[in-house]
Amino acid sequence: MVIEMKQVALILSGCGVYDGAEIHESVLTLLALDEAGVKVTVAAPDGEQYHVIDHATGQPTGETRSMRTEAARIARGPVASVGALDAATFDAVILPGGFGAAKNISTFAIDGEDAKVHADVESFLIAAHAEGKPLGFLCISPAIAAQLFGPKHVQFTIGTDTEMAETLQHWGGKHSSCPVDDIVVDHNLKIVSSPAYMLAERIGDANIGIRKLVQAVLELCED
Amino acid sequence: MVIEMKQVALILSGCGVYDGAEIHESVLTLLALDEAGVKVTVAAPDGEQYHVIDHATGQPTGETRSMRTEAARIARGPVASVGALDAATFDAVILPGGFGAAKNISTFAIDGEDAKVHADVESFLIAAHAEGKPLGFLCISPAIAAQLFGPKHVQFTIGTDTEMAETLQHWGGKHSSCPVDDIVVDHNLKIVSSPAYMLAERIGDANIGIRKLVQAVLELCED
Repeated sequence: MVIEMKQVALILSGCGVYDGAEIHESVLTLLALDEAGVKVTVAAPDGEQYHVIDHATGQPTGETRSMRTEAARIARGPVASVGALDAATFDAVILPGGFGAAKNISTFAIDGEDAKVHADVESFLIAAHAEGKPLGFLCISPAIAAQLFGPKHVQFTIGTDTEMAETLQHWGGKHSSCPVDDIVVDHNLKIVSSPAYMLAERIGDANIGIRKLVQAVLELCED
Repeated sequence: MVIEMKQVALILSGCGVYDGAEIHESVLTLLALDEAGVKVTVAAPDGEQYHVIDHATGQPTGETRSMRTEAARIARGPVASVGALDAATFDAVILPGGFGAAKNISTFAIDGEDAKVHADVESFLIAAHAEGKPLGFLCISPAIAAQLFGPKHVQFTIGTDTEMAETLQHWGGKHSSCPVDDIVVDHNLKIVSSPAYMLAERIGDANIGIRKLVQAVLELCED
């Protein structure tokens, strides 16, 4: 009997909460997936980050950094280009948050309702969804789900920010308030979201929601 | 009755395995400490990293980056200067690995037996040790313990690299081979080490040793 390992794509967009992928969320997702015996492909879109933020001061530095090159710090080595991924080879896709999700992958943090989603990530997520693969979104990254799957009335959470939720429902989805240690599951669309550092004040609290999200995504792989 | 939270200093040196603090080890240490109800002060020495490595290619980029500024990515905000810390205010100190421990904090990766330890980190570790505070070292960072506490015959591990261990015993300490999911405890000196990514091929394996190290360090606080 051969037990095939599940394969999950983890989509990053740099390395750091203010200009890339949120590091704790990324690492804790990698841990939960590894402990579940899942093989992970870390990927990021080609191109530069929107900007580089000094994480001590919160100010832009004027540097340029590549999403994939910086994501390689979290992956401890090369990361795939999202544009080169074949959705058919994965059982699920998970996106951590961090402002990279709303500045690099999507432009929601800058453009609000007029946000654009990076073309390669949009194509990959749409293709994975079309193949019935579950998708997991942490922190602010459910903004991407709200935009891409709003017309399908996706149920999602970005925590408890009702004003931001209002904007995100513009595309047709339905936001639910959710505490840091819980998840919102759209069983119909196989889309799972959890607030993580939209709400977390402690890494241990973020970890509870992230573990629930990973478990729910893996369970949806069986449906 | 007032229960005082333990305070632990986590000493980083950038953000990334090849030129700074190993990200997974740093985050998993933060998680284990948080779950143990410990208050953490993240700190790094002032100054530039030895160099910046493109983590996708493994090659130097020619950029300069500050240890504290990059460490702020892992901390999600400002990190203290190690030089400004008062050892008396902490119950213990932990150092993750990553090449930053052997290029930025120590120069062991470049200078071997002639390595120098960053003056502020050396002073802080010596002071904490003098006050009887336990110290924890992950991955390659026990090279710093081997150098500073070799004359006191420190017992430590950097995994199973016997050639490197030979060099590190030059200062007088005693290396023990140790698997990824275990720790070496010097009860006399209150110094704990674990191989983490010196040996880990999976984040889940690194996590087992890191959790054991954090638990052992916290138990030594009670001695």
